[in-house]
Amino acid sequence: MDKKPLILVTNDDSLSATGIEALILVAKKLGDVVVIAPEKPSSGKSHSVTLYEPLYKKLITDEPGFQVYTCSGMPADCVKMGVHLILDRKPDLVVSGINHGSNSSVSVIYSGTMAAAIEGCMNRINSIGFSLSDYAAGANFEASVKYAEIVMRDVLANGLPEAVCLNVNIPKGKTTDIKGIKVCRQANAAWQEAYVHRQHPHGTDYFWLTGIFKNFEPQATDTDEWALQNNYVSVVPIKTDFTDKAFLNELQANGRFKTK
Amino acid sequence: MDKKPLILVTNDDSLSATGIEALILVAKKLGDVVVIAPEKPSSGKSHSVTLYEPLYKKLITDEPGFQVYTCSGMPADCVKMGVHLILDRKPDLVVSGINHGSNSSVSVIYSGTMAAAIEGCMNRINSIGFSLSDYAAGANFEASVKYAEIVMRDVLANGLPEAVCLNVNIPKGKTTDIKGIKVCRQANAAWQEAYVHRQHPHGTDYFWLTGIFKNFEPQATDTDEWALQNNYVSVVPIKTDFTDKAFLNELQANGRFKTK
Repeated sequence: MDKKPLILVTNDDSLSATGIEALILVAKKLGDVVVIAPEKPSSGKSHSVTLYEPLYKKLITDEPGFQVYTCSGMPADCVKMGVHLILDRKPDLVVSGINHGSNSSVSVIYSGTMAAAIEGCMNRINSIGFSLSDYAAGANFEASVKYAEIVMRDVLANGLPEAVCLNVNIPKGKTTDIKGIKVCRQANAAWQEAYVHRQHPHGTDYFWLTGIFKNFEPQATDTDEWALQNNYVSVVPIKTDFTDKAFLNELQANGRFKTK
Repeated sequence: MDKKPLILVTNDDSLSATGIEALILVAKKLGDVVVIAPEKPSSGKSHSVTLYEPLYKKLITDEPGFQVYTCSGMPADCVKMGVHLILDRKPDLVVSGINHGSNSSVSVIYSGTMAAAIEGCMNRINSIGFSLSDYAAGANFEASVKYAEIVMRDVLANGLPEAVCLNVNIPKGKTTDIKGIKVCRQANAAWQEAYVHRQHPHGTDYFWLTGIFKNFEPQATDTDEWALQNNYVSVVPIKTDFTDKAFLNELQANGRFKTK
């Protein structure tokens, strides 16, 4: 008998989030599942790793084919701990999410959800991050569950290239509103930020980071932002090689930065 | 009279690091300087941003053309606070470092130093991260200072494309040992990790993350790893669009993930 696929599930919102329950539901249909989630919500922690503090893990659930752990570290630590400490074999799939809130476009850079997927990918494991464009506590994950299953089944069957993972974002709304999946590129966009100024009761000034998302190419129809705006699930292949090859070629051709 | 360039200096090792002193030395030769450094060392914090804790800033030095602040947040917060709160004009250059330890290859993904440069770049400012491949407390920054000045002068004069920053790594050693600068790509490599297991005096198990850097393409002569091994300063152009275009084209051509 073939072994069932082993699926490592993580997120950045911790076990208290509805989104991870939705992802566990799908993962259990497809294989044996080990969940390793951060002890505390870790949104915006990007690819942080815990180097100067000790790491703790805690077994929460231990059933045949289904274990749940918490880890005191960050989302990327959860994946590292899974691969190098907890699991007795390499997982067939790492899935992260389903995040409460979009990780489209440049948000991938800040995202703990996507960092976990990227970490899986750096360990040469097929990896996918899922996010729902709905920040509401009572967000409806029905469509997310449907599309997560489609994408996970495909990746389990067909794999991904080395050093590439997927950033999957699901638009807010009912399953019947969603038109399907678009494979697309990361939109050129930015968070336009401002600080809200407050004063501590003891007199010190403090600040909250706030931001508005700005898409610099609203006309482009091949971006994740366009897909989400038009009720498609966006699938963006993300790579771990950040080199800008076009500018590299230009620099090599014109000899810039040469010292001799 | 033309205004002097405004240079925002930050790092991830905090003001207590020798590396930031070296970078300030260079920046002061080239323009007006505002330093905004994290209050606490923040190595391995990647592109973390502080969303759920208040942010504090503190003015440490206030001289004509030279101000120093600390920020309670992460390296990326330092740049955001500089651009959106502290500075009265957009800086001409963001420089981060000089990090104590290499940020070549995939270390760019974990690096707080490089996150600050990437954040500058996301704000459409020419940005450079510098790291010295020497972890020693008494590391010699003489060569770093020389090459930081060459690269910073070039970028101030000629700029960088939008959404591209530079990852500059300097090999360990004396200035006379270094052969020059190589413009190169990020090597395909990984940290091969293992956890060291300890026991807390109260009985709980805890773990330390440790790792050995493994270059998967030691023969390739166009990578940052090759440059550093061969005593060249490596300059890698880094982009904020993480899309894997090659795999995207493949997916679009073969219709994979299509739901209808």
